[in-house]
Amino acid sequence: MDIADLRDRILKQDRRALARAITLVESARPDHRAQATALLDELSKAGKQSLRIGLSGTPGVGKSTFIESFGMMLTAQGLRVAVLAVDPSSARSGGSILGDKTRMERLSRDRNAFIRPSPSQTHLGGVARRTREAVALCEAAGFDVVLIETVGVGQSETVVAEMSDLFLLLLAPAGGDELQGVKRGIMEMADVILVNKADGDLKATAMRTCADYAGALRLLRKRPQDPEGFPKAMTVSALEKNGLATAWGEMKALTTWRKEEGHWTYRRAAQAQFWFHEEVKQGMLARLGQGEAPRQLAHFDAKVATGELSPGQAAKEMLDHLS
Amino acid sequence: MDIADLRDRILKQDRRALARAITLVESARPDHRAQATALLDELSKAGKQSLRIGLSGTPGVGKSTFIESFGMMLTAQGLRVAVLAVDPSSARSGGSILGDKTRMERLSRDRNAFIRPSPSQTHLGGVARRTREAVALCEAAGFDVVLIETVGVGQSETVVAEMSDLFLLLLAPAGGDELQGVKRGIMEMADVILVNKADGDLKATAMRTCADYAGALRLLRKRPQDPEGFPKAMTVSALEKNGLATAWGEMKALTTWRKEEGHWTYRRAAQAQFWFHEEVKQGMLARLGQGEAPRQLAHFDAKVATGELSPGQAAKEMLDHLS
Repeated sequence: MDIADLRDRILKQDRRALARAITLVESARPDHRAQATALLDELSKAGKQSLRIGLSGTPGVGKSTFIESFGMMLTAQGLRVAVLAVDPSSARSGGSILGDKTRMERLSRDRNAFIRPSPSQTHLGGVARRTREAVALCEAAGFDVVLIETVGVGQSETVVAEMSDLFLLLLAPAGGDELQGVKRGIMEMADVILVNKADGDLKATAMRTCADYAGALRLLRKRPQDPEGFPKAMTVSALEKNGLATAWGEMKALTTWRKEEGHWTYRRAAQAQFWFHEEVKQGMLARLGQGEAPRQLAHFDAKVATGELSPGQAAKEMLDHLS
Repeated sequence: MDIADLRDRILKQDRRALARAITLVESARPDHRAQATALLDELSKAGKQSLRIGLSGTPGVGKSTFIESFGMMLTAQGLRVAVLAVDPSSARSGGSILGDKTRMERLSRDRNAFIRPSPSQTHLGGVARRTREAVALCEAAGFDVVLIETVGVGQSETVVAEMSDLFLLLLAPAGGDELQGVKRGIMEMADVILVNKADGDLKATAMRTCADYAGALRLLRKRPQDPEGFPKAMTVSALEKNGLATAWGEMKALTTWRKEEGHWTYRRAAQAQFWFHEEVKQGMLARLGQGEAPRQLAHFDAKVATGELSPGQAAKEMLDHLS
């Protein structure tokens, strides 16, 4: 594969080149990995930046409808929007939450939008790397906004927050008691909480829920990266397309403030370092599958199983041997 | 420290030597770590085995009362009982769930019982290793039963199950709807579910809850390590000491069957291999804190922060350099 050509075409916003590059970063083949690393390094030098928006919400809150309505509003303003997903659970079902793109039917046909399903992976670490690299590719391809979606399971929010500039939490209207269902750790990540379905019979409930969350947000510790009034809770109706422009206005205001105050640059740098450290750790662990290591592991496995060596002693001998 | 002397005293069931050895395995100092590894390897050759019982239950189910009553019943039969805890959350509170031992006041004064609080640790991996090593020390010190307790948070059950021969899940009487509160993954680990507080006003509810869980257990996939009738749900009253002898009888029957059928040996071997692999992984990651690595990390951190290198490229260069 001609990496220089692929780079040039991505920088010229060629969608097919982008799709091909994402397939490349999703590949586990060592030669593909080397090419992907080289490509990403080249593209990072172009210095293009999108607004990366992380979006979390449990099934049923209307995430697909929100992405469709919100994405269509942005493309109508002339913005180019990419949608990616982090879904570790898709490994189990063998498919992807974005599946056949019928979830966001109109947006998927929009020339200014690019929707990429989550790759099937056996572990969150693999999903995280591939998604992060897909984000970088979309960024290089000149998308103004990259939406990174996650179903709220396990640690996937943390992973998405580590690759986002803004983190949105989408919630459904609910009784006061259910407020506790949102884990504190997730609340603390949110920059904007959007209570969806503020329409029809649920409108009043949505407004009450929003007030509840606004109150809960005020109880959290103040973060340096927030101007007055943030994090913020708002109601939206993805179905009736209400509140989306207001929410977008708040996101832009927050982004502008963070850029002016240096928080944007600081966060981007911290995230790059975080992923560098993750890659180094994964690389160290990958050595256990290379060269003599698998044979050594099997050798000590046998001794550990019979009790000839304790796990700790076997590990010590194996590590001494490896270095 | 004289490791040979410590070994001999532990094998002679010297409680002070045991306590000292546990302090040794809890130490992070490299020289202590080397001594601990040597000690554990020596003791593992003695081949003593306890019945290791993992016990999980969320706060409020009466876990302390259960351990006290169950432990006292065992010591009254002449058995020696050790109680350890895996509590990753204790790192946050700075203390230990076992705290001042007043939770199990009578058992802690029993000559045939040994209670050791969970060490404060910043991550589950550290807690896991130290607890596993403390289990091995108690085993070498001739305890017949080692109870390993965990509060049901995050992945601590998985860790405890990986160091137990039997896994008990302690639950409180509850309405039918709350049955879903127990995660399927935890249910699948349980060998025996004990619905506690089957006394007074809650007795009928406890029996209904027990029947609900018995039904839920029947829906799970059959495991090779279970004889007919297991996993099993039973009611107990830790407060009134009812059902404890019956539960213990079931645990002994299950253990006998598993020993006869080879499952005991197989599981012990698989667990030893699991912990060997964990130790090797931790050892690989520990190399990032040794020698030239920290300086290299800092060097690349600076390049990654400014965007001079992408995280993946920096990781590649760092790993090439390290090897």
